[in-house]
Amino acid sequence: MTILVSEVGPRDGLQSIKRPMPTEAKIRWIQALAAAGLREIEVGSFVNPKLLPQMADAPEVVAAARQIPGLTVLALAPNLKGVQRAAEAGAHKITMPVSASEAHSKANINMTCEQALAEVGRACRFRDGLPAGQRPEVEIGISTAFGCTIQGLVSEDWVIEMAVRLAREGADSVGLSDGVGYGNPAQVKRLFRRLHAELGDKAGGAHLHNTRGQGLANVVAALEVGVTTFDASQGGIGGCPYSPGATGNIVTEDLVWMLEAMGLDTGVDLDKLADARTVLEEALPAEPIYGYLPDVGAEKGFRYAARGPAPEGTGKAERGTPACEVVA
Amino acid sequence: MTILVSEVGPRDGLQSIKRPMPTEAKIRWIQALAAAGLREIEVGSFVNPKLLPQMADAPEVVAAARQIPGLTVLALAPNLKGVQRAAEAGAHKITMPVSASEAHSKANINMTCEQALAEVGRACRFRDGLPAGQRPEVEIGISTAFGCTIQGLVSEDWVIEMAVRLAREGADSVGLSDGVGYGNPAQVKRLFRRLHAELGDKAGGAHLHNTRGQGLANVVAALEVGVTTFDASQGGIGGCPYSPGATGNIVTEDLVWMLEAMGLDTGVDLDKLADARTVLEEALPAEPIYGYLPDVGAEKGFRYAARGPAPEGTGKAERGTPACEVVA
Repeated sequence: MTILVSEVGPRDGLQSIKRPMPTEAKIRWIQALAAAGLREIEVGSFVNPKLLPQMADAPEVVAAARQIPGLTVLALAPNLKGVQRAAEAGAHKITMPVSASEAHSKANINMTCEQALAEVGRACRFRDGLPAGQRPEVEIGISTAFGCTIQGLVSEDWVIEMAVRLAREGADSVGLSDGVGYGNPAQVKRLFRRLHAELGDKAGGAHLHNTRGQGLANVVAALEVGVTTFDASQGGIGGCPYSPGATGNIVTEDLVWMLEAMGLDTGVDLDKLADARTVLEEALPAEPIYGYLPDVGAEKGFRYAARGPAPEGTGKAERGTPACEVVA
Repeated sequence: MTILVSEVGPRDGLQSIKRPMPTEAKIRWIQALAAAGLREIEVGSFVNPKLLPQMADAPEVVAAARQIPGLTVLALAPNLKGVQRAAEAGAHKITMPVSASEAHSKANINMTCEQALAEVGRACRFRDGLPAGQRPEVEIGISTAFGCTIQGLVSEDWVIEMAVRLAREGADSVGLSDGVGYGNPAQVKRLFRRLHAELGDKAGGAHLHNTRGQGLANVVAALEVGVTTFDASQGGIGGCPYSPGATGNIVTEDLVWMLEAMGLDTGVDLDKLADARTVLEEALPAEPIYGYLPDVGAEKGFRYAARGPAPEGTGKAERGTPACEVVA
């Protein structure tokens, strides 16, 4: 079985880091990520550059990423205007965040939930009017689907109702997003099961954070009910700037290791992923970068799902640390 | 549904920390853990005190722990002699580690797998000969059940065969242990499903490490196939001394949060668990202590499975950090 790991570091990660990464470094990092086998990368955000100067170079980054053979270039756009700019830049796929929490929707994109639903409709109609061959896919991530830091609980019925309406508005897929790390495995299973039942093949992927250490646990729960696309960011960058101990997105390295060890083919090479991590570390020397696998490497006996046995320490930048012993 | 979280920090955690924790501090920590609602605690190890001076006070610690009402006092013993000492000290339950890896068995307890199986038989017969009311339960954790740092792959058929033979030798329960963090969720599901099929109600719990960030993911996998007992250590202490980034056991705080959020009753209070963490931190000021929940607390809207709603920040020693916002 094949799983799509959608790398969101260059967007979700970098937008939460105040100091912009130079455009040239972003492009080198994206190239290294693609070289590691990541087939889809969210490369930037078409928001107001005054609000997020880190993302001001999104058009150049999209253009450069489009030169990478076989890569699906994804960009985020919060509204019609952003979708128009992202389409013009040549993004293959555009993701629009829509909040299930009314309070979060207003705080995040200054729209009510109803206004955001209507905006998605407008964006899809704009997309439908583009010439054939230039129409990006529109993918929605319903954010705060598992709870909201402002309003707390979010109605699961409302999340599913939104998903159905978003699909009707023309979205190609609708996934569920836990950008604040509120979700737990029981909830993830329940909501994705309902999403699949209602949306069929328009049911999208999972965007999960690791705020309470539960990120990969939620992945396992989502796999149980048929989710096959997972967002992740290299080094777990992105997430909450106010909680120092709280990593953000699930860590691409750890996710890829776990999926491959489970026999699920990601197409990603862990050693080349470690090379990409070096590019990231050199470009952002002062930023904390997370992940377990990069410290310890793959275990003795590790096999890639499709490619078979790999050496011990696979995925670790510097191999050779002694193996760990247990004492009775 | 009820889950038993078996706290192993005072044994598995402290044995891997060179500087012994003073007996008095151990007892205060164990009391604080029990006050938080942990109903079973592995309080020490009856090994040769020359090899592990950290555990030399096991008899005193067992005696003190027995004074705590309602607590099941668990101790580790690697061989018959240790079992005799643990029983004499008054442990309610004795856990014997038996390695499925021949190489690890020799390195860890200086016995072949066959010798270890026979030793369990001798220990169970010794236990059966004790006066009624003084017979401790004998619980086995099959270590390296998911792979071994020395020999790599371990045969799953052999793990299950050992489990069956250990039950026949008289063990009350046989669980599976991943003390090196090699296990992945697919493997955990597969092995525990087989264990349950073969052993029925003698199938024991899961001892999982978080070496590759997969600890809670493996818990979810184990829950899927009916495992209801999980070892964990406060602050994730214990594990591999050679890999600085590699935490050891799954973190009690994160596990309890996840289970409760999933609607599974652990009986543990996260705020009192934070108090116990303070005791640990003060007793071991120089040691790294892990966990996500202690940094961020429970989410807005969090409910205990059995006791209902709890305030935001539950489980966090210092509340009040601003909630995290997401940016479009």
